Amino acid sequence: MVIRNSRIRGFASDTNAGICPEAWEALDRANRGHAPAYGFDSHTQEARAAIQDIFGTDCQVYFVFTGSAANSLAVAHLCRSYELAICHETAHLDLGECGGPEFFSGGSKVLPLPGEHGRLDAAGIRNAVETRTRDFQYPAPRLVSLTQATEAGTVYSLEQLREISHLCRELGLRVHMDGARLANALVHLGCEPADTTWRAGVDVLSFGCTKNGLPQGEAVVFFDRELASGFEYRWKQSGQVASKMRFLSAPWTALLKSGAWLRNARHANACAARLEQGLRPLEGISLSCPREANGVFVRLRPALAAALRQRGWTVGVMPGGAARFMCSWDTRDEDVDALIRDFRELVAEP
Amino acid sequence: MVIRNSRIRGFASDTNAGICPEAWEALDRANRGHAPAYGFDSHTQEARAAIQDIFGTDCQVYFVFTGSAANSLAVAHLCRSYELAICHETAHLDLGECGGPEFFSGGSKVLPLPGEHGRLDAAGIRNAVETRTRDFQYPAPRLVSLTQATEAGTVYSLEQLREISHLCRELGLRVHMDGARLANALVHLGCEPADTTWRAGVDVLSFGCTKNGLPQGEAVVFFDRELASGFEYRWKQSGQVASKMRFLSAPWTALLKSGAWLRNARHANACAARLEQGLRPLEGISLSCPREANGVFVRLRPALAAALRQRGWTVGVMPGGAARFMCSWDTRDEDVDALIRDFRELVAEP
Amino acid sequence: MVIRNSRIRGFASDTNAGICPEAWEALDRANRGHAPAYGFDSHTQEARAAIQDIFGTDCQVYFVFTGSAANSLAVAHLCRSYELAICHETAHLDLGECGGPEFFSGGSKVLPLPGEHGRLDAAGIRNAVETRTRDFQYPAPRLVSLTQATEAGTVYSLEQLREISHLCRELGLRVHMDGARLANALVHLGCEPADTTWRAGVDVLSFGCTKNGLPQGEAVVFFDRELASGFEYRWKQSGQVASKMRFLSAPWTALLKSGAWLRNARHANACAARLEQGLRPLEGISLSCPREANGVFVRLRPALAAALRQRGWTVGVMPGGAARFMCSWDTRDEDVDALIRDFRELVAEP
Amino acid sequence: MVIRNSRIRGFASDTNAGICPEAWEALDRANRGHAPAYGFDSHTQEARAAIQDIFGTDCQVYFVFTGSAANSLAVAHLCRSYELAICHETAHLDLGECGGPEFFSGGSKVLPLPGEHGRLDAAGIRNAVETRTRDFQYPAPRLVSLTQATEAGTVYSLEQLREISHLCRELGLRVHMDGARLANALVHLGCEPADTTWRAGVDVLSFGCTKNGLPQGEAVVFFDRELASGFEYRWKQSGQVASKMRFLSAPWTALLKSGAWLRNARHANACAARLEQGLRPLEGISLSCPREANGVFVRLRPALAAALRQRGWTVGVMPGGAARFMCSWDTRDEDVDALIRDFRELVAEP
Repeated sequence: MVIRNSRIRGFASDTNAGICPEAWEALDRANRGHAPAYGFDSHTQEARAAIQDIFGTDCQVYFVFTGSAANSLAVAHLCRSYELAICHETAHLDLGECGGPEFFSGGSKVLPLPGEHGRLDAAGIRNAVETRTRDFQYPAPRLVSLTQATEAGTVYSLEQLREISHLCRELGLRVHMDGARLANALVHLGCEPADTTWRAGVDVLSFGCTKNGLPQGEAVVFFDRELASGFEYRWKQSGQVASKMRFLSAPWTALLKSGAWLRNARHANACAARLEQGLRPLEGISLSCPREANGVFVRLRPALAAALRQRGWTVGVMPGGAARFMCSWDTRDEDVDALIRDFRELVAEP
Repeated sequence: MVIRNSRIRGFASDTNAGICPEAWEALDRANRGHAPAYGFDSHTQEARAAIQDIFGTDCQVYFVFTGSAANSLAVAHLCRSYELAICHETAHLDLGECGGPEFFSGGSKVLPLPGEHGRLDAAGIRNAVETRTRDFQYPAPRLVSLTQATEAGTVYSLEQLREISHLCRELGLRVHMDGARLANALVHLGCEPADTTWRAGVDVLSFGCTKNGLPQGEAVVFFDRELASGFEYRWKQSGQVASKMRFLSAPWTALLKSGAWLRNARHANACAARLEQGLRPLEGISLSCPREANGVFVRLRPALAAALRQRGWTVGVMPGGAARFMCSWDTRDEDVDALIRDFRELVAEP
Repeated sequence: MVIRNSRIRGFASDTNAGICPEAWEALDRANRGHAPAYGFDSHTQEARAAIQDIFGTDCQVYFVFTGSAANSLAVAHLCRSYELAICHETAHLDLGECGGPEFFSGGSKVLPLPGEHGRLDAAGIRNAVETRTRDFQYPAPRLVSLTQATEAGTVYSLEQLREISHLCRELGLRVHMDGARLANALVHLGCEPADTTWRAGVDVLSFGCTKNGLPQGEAVVFFDRELASGFEYRWKQSGQVASKMRFLSAPWTALLKSGAWLRNARHANACAARLEQGLRPLEGISLSCPREANGVFVRLRPALAAALRQRGWTVGVMPGGAARFMCSWDTRDEDVDALIRDFRELVAEP
Repeated sequence: MVIRNSRIRGFASDTNAGICPEAWEALDRANRGHAPAYGFDSHTQEARAAIQDIFGTDCQVYFVFTGSAANSLAVAHLCRSYELAICHETAHLDLGECGGPEFFSGGSKVLPLPGEHGRLDAAGIRNAVETRTRDFQYPAPRLVSLTQATEAGTVYSLEQLREISHLCRELGLRVHMDGARLANALVHLGCEPADTTWRAGVDVLSFGCTKNGLPQGEAVVFFDRELASGFEYRWKQSGQVASKMRFLSAPWTALLKSGAWLRNARHANACAARLEQGLRPLEGISLSCPREANGVFVRLRPALAAALRQRGWTVGVMPGGAARFMCSWDTRDEDVDALIRDFRELVAEP
């Protein structure tokens, strides 16, 4: 199956955007002569250091190819086969990795919980754990995974994060963060990268910048270095060690050192805010969640969705029924305005 | 750990070379506007077609990131956890994937067998199967994996391939080929891609061109399409579905359509032949295997290896003790001649 | 931890009862001289034939040690790691095997669905499948598991079973039945064993009689023999092939051939009916589900549960909050009457 | 397939013998009234204490159904999927569990090593580890598994055990012992159970008495209790927690407390010694290994094996070619003498 877009830049997914200029130049620079394979090259060393630098701590960093791999490997390394990972019911961990966490861990159960606006809450986690930990009939709770920004376009506040991680410490659970859109969350929160991760109690992070201008690749970041013990073997065994790793790692350095990762995220969030502002006044249009990052989630009549598709827009419908419009590092005001215009015209139609 | 090379282009590994011009241009061309994610884009469709075209058959093609993943996923899809995969004792499948095939298959056993010059032979396979298939105490033999070109720098002849695959049909076994250096083998054999794969009885191929100029990536190619049933789910579950797949797939089209894949391989093989010719006359130097592809495997006194290293050459020693010198798509005559010169001078030293 | 019962025969679980006389005698008879190990003995052959006989079909039969193993192995053999098994949210498959299905299958996801009185329904299954099968982001639905009798003490009618299995055929799903209390269901339905299994569309059955007088052991019964291909290897690999299998299999023959399995179940169901009749009139006592098999599920004030415990009864509380009272093959009228008497007295207390 | 023996008691396998009187009586005594399921009963508590008692240490004990399960679970609990278990090339771990260790661990590799008379030796282990631990390309060595008594009928001396376990401590490896015939080894060594296990550096033991008079079952014994952390969940998840556990555990108490386990083993060893003495003088008969436990391993011409089979003896041929004659707790002198007589007559035939 091939999906054909009639737009150069759409709102179907921030993953549909290409490589940003800073990342592209880094690829070009890395393509000089020979370099040791499997990550023993200087480009990869620099990229690791760049990540340690932005988080301000001596974290352990591994580059992998996809967010599915980052999330699944993090779960697998923290949970044994008879342990439980808890996530939100909209999380990629449960809905978007085709059972990757269960597979990589050799059978860990993933328990999806409800929670308002795409966020888990401490009370729900406590209840789930307490009703399921009577004896060995059910897997032992081990991990809570938080998606920051969430799949619903919202962002956990620092207070919400701390409340959950305090509970996790109390219950003996570890905290994973799926940060496929961490930069978008950071820009919204206006805080330091450390604040929403290790200072908020996160043990291990799936750090993604593919949606933010990289050609590919995520980093698994262990803030608790002891948890990383043996991970380099797991990394290799799972087919995630790039042979020519410089092409995976070098763009990271460029993106982070140049500040492009935050600039790109700020731009995408601003585009989403512009879109939100354009849609809010329209009759019969409402947002299913507050707009906090780079996506706008809209309750849409099926007829309106169909009409938008006829005008060449790809309209993805999420579990729950809202339509998702994602802004990217390369979205332009003219793209946003064109979408708003089509919305306005279609809403106005009898 | 960071390995520092003092040479721009060495002979440590053909994986240490960068991206060839044809692949680079394809990356650049693919980086225009938005494209659907997860392989539903036209670049990926074209790359699939290009692979079907060179093999002259309607094979099923999946792009993955690494050779470890390609090999492990192929084994996992063909073998259930209680089945056996047989390979040569020098094969990456046993020695180089950190147990990837056992992991991805959920426990399939890998049985390494000896065999001259890096090649399995039919008699050895028959003996291994017949002494191990008495009842359910031992995993059921299911798959034979052949590395073409081998890890010892040799190439299976078409007759050798056919003899093994005939035996496999008789014994009810499937045939996998690890084609990380398939192009180098093709150039040596002077045959069509189909001849050394599906026409020789290969059911599924790990097709690699990373060593041949691509930035990364292998293709899992099912010549028996029925064997591929369900593979797209396994592919996703294992974290091998690239979100921005165009950057993984587009370079394939360029490499194959332009003929660069064979040109590059021919060049690397020729460099290896030049190196072989330069080393053969030297006193005390002998090849551990016939030179048939792009590597020269040399029996080397430890003192000589150390002296070469002092002159800035990375000298890798293989299981078995031979030193490996690999030529790449970007190796130059001057590089080969510099190595020969150093060899000659060191051999001449008292 | 050791749990101490102050009653010789309680209602905590039908698994707490011992070995019935028919099974005991069979153990004794089997303990004569030597017999081939690993199931190649005549006792095991006879037990397989006895099971084929009661189902009236040439099914494939494997003896395993526990219900957890039977369920998990059945799921593992039908589902690949990227496939989905659907069950009721009270099913042992999800709540009682500590993630066994996920583990044995190497990562298959188990999706629990709600449904009235412990039963799945066709509409719920259809909805779950249709909202989750858009592409490879979520595991492919493969199996529906039905518990007969259910964990809520109810029984699927033949019509309910047929409706679900018709839907499963339409959707390309296989049907598994967890028959840990199959005999209790049969006695309630008054039908042939074939009627509630293969004639109702069941492909594979976990057939348990441990709760019905056996010392241990379940049988995995494949009605579709092709589905069993390779299962003997999986059986061995999972540590479920008894070395002295005659002691696992011989009691089956005795229980089935003598008719004790149905007598025992009929007796247990009758005891439960007696208990139900005794409790129904009591003020403030209500059943959470219709009583159809050998268990009575009662909504109980915590104070009443505590008072019963003080009188020496073990009172287990199920997910959902009802207290469970299970009758066994060895329950006596005097036991039932003693429990009713205590209930009556405690209910009457101010 | 059903194997028919024409002998009441043969020498095919010590697993072919039945339940010894002490174990039988314990089963009978345990079959009184109700008992808590899943191991929370007093019989199981007593059996655990009996095992702690004979080893003279506060070890952690779990009862499982088979030796395959005990070995596989021990490996799985000590090795992660990317770690390596080393065993002798004749060990059940590699040849007799159908890949169970690979399966239960989710992919750990098992590396079989040669070694004289069925025993691993320290030099071989050191060499295997040192040639395979250069980087993450190969699984990380983690465990050495020793079979005591070995599959070749020999016994590790205390000195041999200590040498290997010292090496393992040096190399950071854990030590597992497959003690399916531990009692036979103890009787040969004339030492305390502690001497050949934890005092010799064993971390975890698969302790079997099925071959020694139990109906079934092995105990996984962790001498290092910290290694057992979480094992109860793994035990449940793998389908090895007996519901009516009293019937699995009670016979252990009887066998150990009565001393029958050592009496039975002493008897079986003595029968094997009697057989050895009878065979040694015969022309053309030689033992492939020293006879130290309850088995005699004989180099046998195929014609002689066939002639023995014609006289009703089951003659099993081991990997390597020797025929195995195993003595059991119920073997009688008359059985041994009958076998010797047939040997003598057949050897004397022209």
